[in-house]
Amino acid sequence: MHSPTEADAVIIGAGPVGLFQVFELGLLEIKAHVIDSLPEIGGQCIELYPDKPIYDIPAVPVCTGRELVSNLLKQIEPFKPQFHLGQDVTSLKQQEDGRFLLTTSENKSFLTKTVFIAAGVGAFQPRVLNIEGIEPLVGKQVFYHVKQPEQFTGKRIVICGGGDAALDWALYFANTAASVTLIHRRNDFKAVPQSIAKMRELCADGKIQLLIGQITDLEIQNGNLTSIAVDNIDGNTQSLTLDDLLIFFGLSPKLGPIAEWGLDIDRKQIAVDTEKFQTSIPGIYAVGDINIYPGKKKLILSGFHEAALAAFAAAAYLNPEKPIQLQYTTTSTKLHKALGVQSPTFE
Amino acid sequence: MHSPTEADAVIIGAGPVGLFQVFELGLLEIKAHVIDSLPEIGGQCIELYPDKPIYDIPAVPVCTGRELVSNLLKQIEPFKPQFHLGQDVTSLKQQEDGRFLLTTSENKSFLTKTVFIAAGVGAFQPRVLNIEGIEPLVGKQVFYHVKQPEQFTGKRIVICGGGDAALDWALYFANTAASVTLIHRRNDFKAVPQSIAKMRELCADGKIQLLIGQITDLEIQNGNLTSIAVDNIDGNTQSLTLDDLLIFFGLSPKLGPIAEWGLDIDRKQIAVDTEKFQTSIPGIYAVGDINIYPGKKKLILSGFHEAALAAFAAAAYLNPEKPIQLQYTTTSTKLHKALGVQSPTFE
Repeated sequence: MHSPTEADAVIIGAGPVGLFQVFELGLLEIKAHVIDSLPEIGGQCIELYPDKPIYDIPAVPVCTGRELVSNLLKQIEPFKPQFHLGQDVTSLKQQEDGRFLLTTSENKSFLTKTVFIAAGVGAFQPRVLNIEGIEPLVGKQVFYHVKQPEQFTGKRIVICGGGDAALDWALYFANTAASVTLIHRRNDFKAVPQSIAKMRELCADGKIQLLIGQITDLEIQNGNLTSIAVDNIDGNTQSLTLDDLLIFFGLSPKLGPIAEWGLDIDRKQIAVDTEKFQTSIPGIYAVGDINIYPGKKKLILSGFHEAALAAFAAAAYLNPEKPIQLQYTTTSTKLHKALGVQSPTFE
Repeated sequence: MHSPTEADAVIIGAGPVGLFQVFELGLLEIKAHVIDSLPEIGGQCIELYPDKPIYDIPAVPVCTGRELVSNLLKQIEPFKPQFHLGQDVTSLKQQEDGRFLLTTSENKSFLTKTVFIAAGVGAFQPRVLNIEGIEPLVGKQVFYHVKQPEQFTGKRIVICGGGDAALDWALYFANTAASVTLIHRRNDFKAVPQSIAKMRELCADGKIQLLIGQITDLEIQNGNLTSIAVDNIDGNTQSLTLDDLLIFFGLSPKLGPIAEWGLDIDRKQIAVDTEKFQTSIPGIYAVGDINIYPGKKKLILSGFHEAALAAFAAAAYLNPEKPIQLQYTTTSTKLHKALGVQSPTFE
């Protein structure tokens, strides 16, 4: 491992609240690193509802998740945060000098004075199929993501799931795979109507086989998956030979290693006060959906407020000698300088 | 007095936080009346900085006070709040049935189950010049606002004050008035450097007369102001003939009658908890700059968060039997109906 990057602040989570945390720290001249388990910036907004309209961001009558993230990225541009994406924070240990040593699943490490956990409902991980013998096959013949679609060309593939991801890939592979079988437990799909209609059409044309049922067994020979057993909705079991199994059961957030860091946790959420949004460990703050306090509502706007108060608390923690004055972006020359904008002139 | 208007919620203050309170109550199907002492909607944003850019509204990289208010008005349109402007709430009395009777300076009255005080730093009033005989002249020859600049064309005017408003108007009238005298108690101005430089230049050119001192007397003949006495910084008194006197000592917010309602007040601010943002009287909430709690920062975004939590608390107070579920504007059909937008369709 390389020597750790020294920092004043590390933010865990690049969702809207993590991004706004960059902004509030930036106004107080604290630079931040941002780590996220997803490969993209935007958290739940991008992962769960990139194109759905949001109506309750104050002074933004309507925007999509994608637009919200794009506006926040524009807003934090002056503060040039450093992003470290596609990696979980695997450990956090307080050092003798009070700083925190963080390491990530990509073997990066940070030695930071403050930590902001803005991890939403946790790190997103695909929901898995719990069935005996599946684990050694993951990444070989069983996949929860598609990274290289071309590897499935000419293969007999089985796709499990009833959402957009399952349908999108079923439609995609209908032309390139040797065969596509779509398995879902009910004949009822939660996806955009166009995809559902197209899938029904391809089923009618014989290009996709639709099976309503559940996988109950895997047949494995010499370490290779050769066929699966599917219990139909009418109680029959059928066997299906295949090359690859693609599973899209959605993403499930996991608190993961955060649970091991010695923080007070209340029903999978991190307990904070409402003055500093500080956890039970001074110097570690928790903001957004991951925290809990009396009255807590999981609203993006509450996370924004929490990020502002946590930033002021961290500034006082980092510089206990230096009193912090609340300045306003409308009038403060100091804040204008930090934002890289010109102070207004009246002449 | 007419019989009072019955209401579930009355919001005192039509600034950004009062407006967003309408929105958060609306999502919970609570209709609101809004009362403000100013004749316009927008509070401090419109009164103090309508055209100055604001940079710290989350997901809005930059907007003016005017734009912020206009966006909020658009956002609350579906909830059709009723505004009652240009009037102070002069009294609030709890009735035997628990409701609150509010009366305004325009003789309107409301019988409401809940009250939201979003009165910012109080009702805005210009700081006045305390000098004998001045009161009958206000609006005739003594002005604390400029509404129609053209009325001063060709006049001998005296401007008092050392801030942006005083300097802006001194520069403005230097070209149109017969004469401009600027009086300030110190040779030190709190205004943007460009304005100060420009004022010094116009003084050097003889277009503005600068007097460092204070007005100590008004000479009034037949009810008209004819001259003023100014005590210079070196102890001399000089007399100055004039047509009009413009005074810009800034705006001073007054808590006013709110102080008499029996609420816990801490240094001119209303004490609230951080769960419901409720005052010491159940059913009365205080949000935005007027409230105080540990960690409080006078940020617009904090007021937005407070308004959201106060709305949830009020919904529970209004319907103690009915549990309130947090729903999301991205997915809730009920909220889409309240907002008057179409829900996305899935098969």
